[in-house]
Amino acid sequence: MFRVTVLGTAAASPTRERGLPAVAVEREGDLLLFDCGEGTQRQMMLANPPLSNPRYIFVTHMHGDHLLGLLGLIQSMALQNREEPLHIYGPRGLGEMIRYNLEALRVYVPFKIIVHRVRRGAILSEREYTVSAERTIHTNDSYAYRLDEKKRPGKFYPEKALALGVPKGPLWKRLQGGRAVKVGGNRVTPAQVMGPKRRGRSFGYSGDTRPTKELKGFFRGVDLLVFDGTYGEEHSDKAKEYLHSTVVEAAKLASEAKVGRLLLTHLSARVSDYEELTRQAKKRFSRAEVARDFLSVVLPLPE
Amino acid sequence: MFRVTVLGTAAASPTRERGLPAVAVEREGDLLLFDCGEGTQRQMMLANPPLSNPRYIFVTHMHGDHLLGLLGLIQSMALQNREEPLHIYGPRGLGEMIRYNLEALRVYVPFKIIVHRVRRGAILSEREYTVSAERTIHTNDSYAYRLDEKKRPGKFYPEKALALGVPKGPLWKRLQGGRAVKVGGNRVTPAQVMGPKRRGRSFGYSGDTRPTKELKGFFRGVDLLVFDGTYGEEHSDKAKEYLHSTVVEAAKLASEAKVGRLLLTHLSARVSDYEELTRQAKKRFSRAEVARDFLSVVLPLPE
Repeated sequence: MFRVTVLGTAAASPTRERGLPAVAVEREGDLLLFDCGEGTQRQMMLANPPLSNPRYIFVTHMHGDHLLGLLGLIQSMALQNREEPLHIYGPRGLGEMIRYNLEALRVYVPFKIIVHRVRRGAILSEREYTVSAERTIHTNDSYAYRLDEKKRPGKFYPEKALALGVPKGPLWKRLQGGRAVKVGGNRVTPAQVMGPKRRGRSFGYSGDTRPTKELKGFFRGVDLLVFDGTYGEEHSDKAKEYLHSTVVEAAKLASEAKVGRLLLTHLSARVSDYEELTRQAKKRFSRAEVARDFLSVVLPLPE
Repeated sequence: MFRVTVLGTAAASPTRERGLPAVAVEREGDLLLFDCGEGTQRQMMLANPPLSNPRYIFVTHMHGDHLLGLLGLIQSMALQNREEPLHIYGPRGLGEMIRYNLEALRVYVPFKIIVHRVRRGAILSEREYTVSAERTIHTNDSYAYRLDEKKRPGKFYPEKALALGVPKGPLWKRLQGGRAVKVGGNRVTPAQVMGPKRRGRSFGYSGDTRPTKELKGFFRGVDLLVFDGTYGEEHSDKAKEYLHSTVVEAAKLASEAKVGRLLLTHLSARVSDYEELTRQAKKRFSRAEVARDFLSVVLPLPE
């Protein structure tokens, strides 16, 4: 299962309807959080089904609206006696800020917190997926993230295995696991009974940024992209001034990067007509929409 | 108008239904916040009518669940270009913590933030009310707060004024304002035409604490008391261990202090049967109830 839930879609300050930035990715039992604005722990509880215990947290940049929920979340996990180490990825200064506050508030944390300083490129390789980072244009140390599942083995063809004399049972399992088998005097390889490797699923999150050529390359072909859509086209001057994107700029980037689907987030409090924003975005990219809190997308496994 | 709104009633971690500690007092145009847990700025928006721009914030102690909403609230007020200085009262270390984080997150704050270190006794005297503090038994520097309106002038008796020859008009206003007037050759004093000074309204908030003799004295006679009711009677061992109160201990203190009404807050996530807690408390003090988020009480002006 690969499910992306947008937990907060407001920019800078929450509104009655929208919480501060956070995106949850549930993948085969792992929970990964991208940004963790104030109130994220409660948004996680209010999600359906509720979310808890992230394994990894990725912070895009050192602005309060994207990270002030970290401390309360850590404190709550401490109270629940979490034991598993927590890996947090983020820009310069994040580790010190977390350490300072846990010390000032005398939070006893019974699990290990490992804060990794992010730089562009590959930052995490798990058994079944990788996470990489790209610079964004927002602060002098801000990042976008991309998660890619590793390639999965190709489709197994039982009829080919049988034709080569491999009987159903443990030898099939061995072939499916990528290892050759011997039957009689013959060696049978996985390539003889399986199709080409299949691609995994992918997800991208921009944090706050102007659209850039680098980000277009970075997000190329992701199944789902959650991107800064702070403003409507009518405020493109503000987008340039405050280093954000309009929904039209985001849609153009998504279209050119050939992503599967685009969710626009980090919506300015200036915006009230979300349908108009969706119209603006869809004109450039039909699979674009303005996100709302708790919007959840399940990515199907590619054939 | 004097309205108390409980914005968050959970202990330690929020729940789906309950936010983290914060109590708002609106008094004749001033907004005072007591504690400011994570998510308070959004709870303020969700209150009916919405609340904004506190003039004073009082923090009871340096635990994250009581203050982690401060930074986001300050950031939002900065974005709204607040100009009025913000006075924050709290224990040792609070000022440094706020300064450190605003610096680390590069928040430009266009208004002055003055952090006052609290000690027991009078801490604030406004034209029409005072706020005082008392030590609580929770951390080594934790406080409860009490707000008292100053005495108001007594009732004005028009018939007495007329009998003394003071005609209706500006002279009455002068008398009502506490100044003597001269009519013909006679001096008429306010005491001759007005009743005794009338008491103002009062509010108390315990923060986290064991019940103590000092707090019983401190809260004596308040119209409304919001008090630590973390546990039911069945967890009185936990209340002692973690330096909180049971709802029965809180009700006993409220009864002995002859308060007008008691709201129990800071409810442990262990609690699920709130009606049972209310029953337990009401047995000791009939004007007790378990608070829920956004519960709002208007204190009438005493006759």
